[in-house]
Amino acid sequence: MAVDTVVYIFDLLGIAVFAVSGALAAAEKRLDVLGFVLFGTITGIGGGTVRDLLLQTDQVFWIGNTTYLWVCIGASLATWFLAHLFESLRALLLWADALGLALFSVLGTQKALAWDAPLLVAVGMGMMTATFGSLIRDSLLGRPPVLLEPDIYVSAAALGALSYVAIVAQDWGREVALPVAVAAAFALRAGAILFDLRLPKYRPRDPRRNTHVP
Amino acid sequence: MAVDTVVYIFDLLGIAVFAVSGALAAAEKRLDVLGFVLFGTITGIGGGTVRDLLLQTDQVFWIGNTTYLWVCIGASLATWFLAHLFESLRALLLWADALGLALFSVLGTQKALAWDAPLLVAVGMGMMTATFGSLIRDSLLGRPPVLLEPDIYVSAAALGALSYVAIVAQDWGREVALPVAVAAAFALRAGAILFDLRLPKYRPRDPRRNTHVP
Amino acid sequence: MAVDTVVYIFDLLGIAVFAVSGALAAAEKRLDVLGFVLFGTITGIGGGTVRDLLLQTDQVFWIGNTTYLWVCIGASLATWFLAHLFESLRALLLWADALGLALFSVLGTQKALAWDAPLLVAVGMGMMTATFGSLIRDSLLGRPPVLLEPDIYVSAAALGALSYVAIVAQDWGREVALPVAVAAAFALRAGAILFDLRLPKYRPRDPRRNTHVP
Repeated sequence: MAVDTVVYIFDLLGIAVFAVSGALAAAEKRLDVLGFVLFGTITGIGGGTVRDLLLQTDQVFWIGNTTYLWVCIGASLATWFLAHLFESLRALLLWADALGLALFSVLGTQKALAWDAPLLVAVGMGMMTATFGSLIRDSLLGRPPVLLEPDIYVSAAALGALSYVAIVAQDWGREVALPVAVAAAFALRAGAILFDLRLPKYRPRDPRRNTHVP
Repeated sequence: MAVDTVVYIFDLLGIAVFAVSGALAAAEKRLDVLGFVLFGTITGIGGGTVRDLLLQTDQVFWIGNTTYLWVCIGASLATWFLAHLFESLRALLLWADALGLALFSVLGTQKALAWDAPLLVAVGMGMMTATFGSLIRDSLLGRPPVLLEPDIYVSAAALGALSYVAIVAQDWGREVALPVAVAAAFALRAGAILFDLRLPKYRPRDPRRNTHVP
Repeated sequence: MAVDTVVYIFDLLGIAVFAVSGALAAAEKRLDVLGFVLFGTITGIGGGTVRDLLLQTDQVFWIGNTTYLWVCIGASLATWFLAHLFESLRALLLWADALGLALFSVLGTQKALAWDAPLLVAVGMGMMTATFGSLIRDSLLGRPPVLLEPDIYVSAAALGALSYVAIVAQDWGREVALPVAVAAAFALRAGAILFDLRLPKYRPRDPRRNTHVP
């Protein structure tokens, strides 16, 4: 199977899991079925849309190919009908987010490289593609952003983007770089979820407290 | 009168009512006069701006023609001076929103079709043009988004966009499609406001509760 | 030194102080180091990015020249390591914001004029460049937007943009217009901070209360 076909399937899969995560957030807010479709779609294509606008690609990816929109609509409707089967929406949302995060950090980086972006910009685009869908979703829904938790969320996207760039730079080809980088990002995020790994939060030192020390 | 002239007048009218709804939201938050103009303008042109960026039209609509900005500024200032005349800002906001919603769902669809978007994309663009101004307004102001209420808000935009596409497909021409689709969307939204129509919210079933049933 | 070099240095300086203000907001929310970089970068380049997308410049400014991103990353990391030295993050955030506001209101206007925007659009672009970074930052972080305070924030951006347009219209050249307009905007904002200047808030009159007056 051609690499491009695999990439396309990954792309649709990533969009489907992000759409599910958006629809689950809509479920949390008890929206109606159109709210599911709206937030499923925004979350599914949001990150890639911001990426395409910034890269000024010849066309935003879902305008020329409506398959992406149908995947979002289908995944959102499936969530509407099936979400009640799952005991915990929260856990499901977490894992759907993790998979989408890993996929898009790599696919976003790849697209930016294809449009001749500098390496730093490509890494940033990968991180953005992976995180902006959920960031927009949470901001619009008034939820505390998943992104603000210090639990290796943005870091996993960074790892996916950086390892893709690093592997491609070794001339190992996309067919190696794609699965390895996705696996690396997913493993880091999964480890963070399972073992509660976290980066240290910022802790301000209180200068006044120091002066009270004898 | 040429269809384009009517469309242009409708466009300015829609932007004016959306700007008023943005300025009324600013009034709710007790902003100063520049806050009125800022949120009036963002709400007035926000949806159409997102649409034009996504469609990559040759120019964002209000950059080439500053009339749109002057309408936003004028409507915002009028709201600053006149809003206290109305007893209930909330009711006024609701109806201004409803009219803008109906107008833009159709005008946004029409513009997307003019830029050769696929039908599904055109319907999405119509819904987005109609709803993203208020979505951005509410998100920036930290208000509970009007859009998240299950009261036939997005649905009315969908009806406007879909009926425009359907009527145009019958070759009845824009001069029929435009008023009919706007009226359909407005009637649905007005009915929802007056008779408190709502789509069913998502209600999760609790699997654990079922196991307790004898 | 050529005007363009001065403009470029101002541009980098403005982005650095905005990045610091974004990183300080991340500190307030106790984010991790990647959160600092993320919000430092979004706040640093957010306003200019929106401006470039709307103006449809040939390339978003930080894609062709990664210096801007490195400045954001550097300023964010510096904030991570040094912010605890300052007793009050709040005061620092306020002044960093004020300087960035003044710089970008003028630089944004200048870039819009360079892209042949009408005067009203150029003034709007200046105000947007100056305020949208912090608006996006606050919206994403769920903080009460700095922008919504009636304390001459947007007004200072408006003064910077308007005075730049006015001075340039006198044919005094950019090398005069730039520092004078920046100084004017900063002075107004600084005066507002120091002397607690405010524009009057909107105060609704209650019509029902009037009917009770004998």
